[in-house]
Amino acid sequence: MTLVLGGARSGKSRHAEALIEAETGPWTYIATAQAFDDEMHERIAQHRARRGGGWRTVDAPLELGRAIAAGDGSPVLVDCLTLWLTNVVLAERDVAAERAALVEACRNAAGPLVLVSNEVGFGIVPENALARRFRDEAGRLHQELAAIADRVVLVVAGIPMQVK
Amino acid sequence: MTLVLGGARSGKSRHAEALIEAETGPWTYIATAQAFDDEMHERIAQHRARRGGGWRTVDAPLELGRAIAAGDGSPVLVDCLTLWLTNVVLAERDVAAERAALVEACRNAAGPLVLVSNEVGFGIVPENALARRFRDEAGRLHQELAAIADRVVLVVAGIPMQVK
Amino acid sequence: MTLVLGGARSGKSRHAEALIEAETGPWTYIATAQAFDDEMHERIAQHRARRGGGWRTVDAPLELGRAIAAGDGSPVLVDCLTLWLTNVVLAERDVAAERAALVEACRNAAGPLVLVSNEVGFGIVPENALARRFRDEAGRLHQELAAIADRVVLVVAGIPMQVK
Repeated sequence: MTLVLGGARSGKSRHAEALIEAETGPWTYIATAQAFDDEMHERIAQHRARRGGGWRTVDAPLELGRAIAAGDGSPVLVDCLTLWLTNVVLAERDVAAERAALVEACRNAAGPLVLVSNEVGFGIVPENALARRFRDEAGRLHQELAAIADRVVLVVAGIPMQVK
Repeated sequence: MTLVLGGARSGKSRHAEALIEAETGPWTYIATAQAFDDEMHERIAQHRARRGGGWRTVDAPLELGRAIAAGDGSPVLVDCLTLWLTNVVLAERDVAAERAALVEACRNAAGPLVLVSNEVGFGIVPENALARRFRDEAGRLHQELAAIADRVVLVVAGIPMQVK
Repeated sequence: MTLVLGGARSGKSRHAEALIEAETGPWTYIATAQAFDDEMHERIAQHRARRGGGWRTVDAPLELGRAIAAGDGSPVLVDCLTLWLTNVVLAERDVAAERAALVEACRNAAGPLVLVSNEVGFGIVPENALARRFRDEAGRLHQELAAIADRVVLVVAGIPMQVK
């Protein structure tokens, strides 16, 4: 299990895809994005176009733990945890319970698992209370996943720095 | 002397506490937080509950250098510089003079000293002028302390990356 | 070619200047800043005062690739890409074309080249659409430059962490 953290447009998805494609396919791409607007539609289309054949896509905007648990042992890429967490918060679910279920699913994954997420905690405290809460929840999620991950990398300008 | 930098909810306080508890106690916790609202009250209570026995707590929202200088050689944890700097700026004190006094106190600390601070400079330029000024002052403070520190770490997802 | 990334007031300019001054001079400083307000005027003056003699300054708020291509093989410092990109976006130029031209100029630089830029992608998604776009463009630019750079460093609290 590898946790790939990175900033906006840091190349983290590309790095994660390369990690998965180094494993024997077929590969599963678990997408957490929900396209609410044109900006998101375009981003999803760009990511999909970059991945070639050999990929199966599963949409899991909310039921991410279940999607990981359904794996058959072939390599799985989750892109990204940030959007999943956003969906969980906006759906007013119990974040702590959802986090625990996700961590448990990751711990029991049947095959190679690469998780992509945005590192969002290195800026000034946001004025928006929801943004502050989101930032805190993202931090907690990353800490728990990093604790059980075999590897953690921070992608800077497309280049992975080893954290763990 | 160790400077522990990290993002929001990065596990930096927990890492710093582990560093101090690896030293022979009793340990002194210098708290800079002032609870103006419920959110802060809750954070302070959470941090205090996590620390077990063997800790003495000193409140130093503003007179941080003096609190460090009063040490008797037993290990000291300061959590955190970000809140101290916020207090100094809001109290309209001379930030450069306060910074110089703090750096001098750290240089002369009688025993092991671990300083926790938020890295806040990796986001987009804030629209708010006070936030911009705060970000600049935090950067200056971190540079000066890092220059005299024996070790600097950046905590990412609960895991320390060695900077110095 | 070295890409020096860092947060606000992280000491990235100072580190970049030290890298260049380790080379045989004279040294060229390519400044991309345009002083629109007092805050910028002050920052420019501070940076200029810190650099000693032996430096030639070239202003290139927009024509950065051309300024690099005009080099005679002596060491060049560009400070900073963030402001250049801001100028390009505000001038409503074709960012992709400008980026390609800059990357090409860097690849063909006649002598040592150090590029300074702000890492801005590690915060919460900005509410401002222009800030979001800028953040994305900065990420793309950093990835392309890092790919061709010999060295990439991330400056944290004045201390360079090796990325590549």
